Amino acid sequence: MSAHTESRFAAGIYEQRLERAVQLIREAHLDALLITPGPDLRYLIGSSAQSFERLTCLVITSDKATPSVVVPKLEVAGLRESAVDELGLRVLDWVDGVNPYDLVQSALHIGSRVAVADTMPALHLLPLAHSFSGLPVSATPVLRELRMIKGDAEIEALRRAGAAIDRVHARMGEFLQVGRTEAEVGKDITDAIVAEEHTGAEFVIVGSGPNGAIPHHEVSDRRIEAGDVVVIDIGGPVEPGYYSDSTRTYVLGEPDPEIAARCAELERAQAAAVAAVRPGVPAAAVDAAAREPLEAAGLGAAFVHRTGHGIGLSVHEEPYIVAGNDLELRPGMAFSIEPGIYFPGEWGARIEDIVVVTEDGCVSMNQQPHGLTVLPA
Amino acid sequence: MSAHTESRFAAGIYEQRLERAVQLIREAHLDALLITPGPDLRYLIGSSAQSFERLTCLVITSDKATPSVVVPKLEVAGLRESAVDELGLRVLDWVDGVNPYDLVQSALHIGSRVAVADTMPALHLLPLAHSFSGLPVSATPVLRELRMIKGDAEIEALRRAGAAIDRVHARMGEFLQVGRTEAEVGKDITDAIVAEEHTGAEFVIVGSGPNGAIPHHEVSDRRIEAGDVVVIDIGGPVEPGYYSDSTRTYVLGEPDPEIAARCAELERAQAAAVAAVRPGVPAAAVDAAAREPLEAAGLGAAFVHRTGHGIGLSVHEEPYIVAGNDLELRPGMAFSIEPGIYFPGEWGARIEDIVVVTEDGCVSMNQQPHGLTVLPA
Repeated sequence: MSAHTESRFAAGIYEQRLERAVQLIREAHLDALLITPGPDLRYLIGSSAQSFERLTCLVITSDKATPSVVVPKLEVAGLRESAVDELGLRVLDWVDGVNPYDLVQSALHIGSRVAVADTMPALHLLPLAHSFSGLPVSATPVLRELRMIKGDAEIEALRRAGAAIDRVHARMGEFLQVGRTEAEVGKDITDAIVAEEHTGAEFVIVGSGPNGAIPHHEVSDRRIEAGDVVVIDIGGPVEPGYYSDSTRTYVLGEPDPEIAARCAELERAQAAAVAAVRPGVPAAAVDAAAREPLEAAGLGAAFVHRTGHGIGLSVHEEPYIVAGNDLELRPGMAFSIEPGIYFPGEWGARIEDIVVVTEDGCVSMNQQPHGLTVLPA
Repeated sequence: MSAHTESRFAAGIYEQRLERAVQLIREAHLDALLITPGPDLRYLIGSSAQSFERLTCLVITSDKATPSVVVPKLEVAGLRESAVDELGLRVLDWVDGVNPYDLVQSALHIGSRVAVADTMPALHLLPLAHSFSGLPVSATPVLRELRMIKGDAEIEALRRAGAAIDRVHARMGEFLQVGRTEAEVGKDITDAIVAEEHTGAEFVIVGSGPNGAIPHHEVSDRRIEAGDVVVIDIGGPVEPGYYSDSTRTYVLGEPDPEIAARCAELERAQAAAVAAVRPGVPAAAVDAAAREPLEAAGLGAAFVHRTGHGIGLSVHEEPYIVAGNDLELRPGMAFSIEPGIYFPGEWGARIEDIVVVTEDGCVSMNQQPHGLTVLPA
């Protein structure tokens, strides 16, 4: 197995992240971070545990004591695949009959101003909260400073994810054909996503004809017709857990000139937003850069959603590229730029790349052509 | 599409459930139930929404006012596939920039002693909790009275799920062959689960040789060898969302007599537990009924987990068949009976059926032979 398909990075990367996390909770005047399975846990110790019913919880305290992991005994073997041993973490295992929330309490030991992972379910949060002084807070404001700025290994993972989803788009002519249903096309795309290095196909949107005007449409039994404009928005994780997410718009046969003209405006808008990305620029300015060309072309009202979302171990994370977000971009931030235009009952189009901010601009993780791609009718 | 592959039941079933839910929150002296996407939402209104980042939340109040659903505007179309329209629920949609937690507050209107779904993530629970009087409680003690007792349509769904997974076990000789890796076998089983009516393969355990001694093992690159004992524990949901879950143990070639004898004891233990099931019997007594024959045979220490778990729209739910659970069984309860024996570093075996309690005993949803099944070496 080559290094890049491992389920986690080298332990040294997690060691640095844990050290930074302790600094950040001290700066936030918190006593501890409680992290249940999800992207934060994978970020901090390289564990892709998915347990829900039985508590697994990483406990990091502000006093630089060794972090602990509370884990069901049956799941200790799985946890060993993370960096837990190399990091020297304390493993507090428990069996049915033991109260795992007491174990968390014993690991907390210094206070109870805690921040919890956004994914922690009420099932665990409610029994934990009874022993805290007041409601816990979200760990996201603490961890976003870490997770938002991607390191070299993360950017390399995003680049592999982008190249993998590009290969699926490059094969779209095999799948997207007149007479097939969106669901049939979607099934083939799902198989291709898995064949192309992803560990799963997390989302597959095949929005043909009027369905393309519904941004969150997935697939349906509608059959592709000659002349259809089709939005294909696809992605999923590649090891060690980083997401691809890329949208291209296709047309079956030569497009109506009006459709082609509107898609060309969209392509200009997407390129304008990419060109606006550089350190120091507010996220909102990138959103505005996508919106302005469309408004100038009379298409402003057809662009009904934000321009983009951050991406990494979560498919949607900070920074959000949206009006009102004054957050200044910094090198290492990774996010989508995906303006779209939607004409309800008729058709829609969207173009989406993942970009990573560099010292003087950005690089795109996706290299497939951006324009309306003509497939045989 | 035939009726039984619909994603939900007829609206009348949800109408009754909502009425009972209102009764139950009144009896529990609660003001409201807040239900985010997950099995409780599917149970109450037939919605299989999966949104995480943007709040979707069913609000049911104790005063018999019409329940409301707070939902992102982009996801209203998907919500319409649930029973929301036929039930006449109020749909409160929201767009980026609106505070959805304020919408929940406006729908609550009568008080704030609330119960929340166990799956509600901290992302939503924390901002909601700031406006409640004290910590919310879990909705599970309220809803388990409903969800634990399956109605006829649910039992029929569990029966279809059981028959579907039986068909996969019946084909095991095609997949499980000497020289193949567990991962290769697991991939074929995954495809077969989907081919056999499931909407997905949620868990696929192929525990060969020493891996069979790890109850929560999934798959590995270990190659199947002649003489291996192999635990195959598989399942997933069938529409409208009810789970299969069945384990059988296989051996490649004629087994060692000692292994065969131990597996025969396990088969007796599983049958004894099934025979113990009837209304009025405590869940713990069924666990004991599985344990006693194994203890008598000197295998008690090898049975390291509980005997079973409830099943329905969740793969693990109440009732749990475990020592200490005094809950008396009632007709309509559905759960697994899955004793296992594990010999670390050597081999393991488990036999699992889903049963539903009847007026005078139980019926099994799984009909494949229970004994150690010999496949060609």
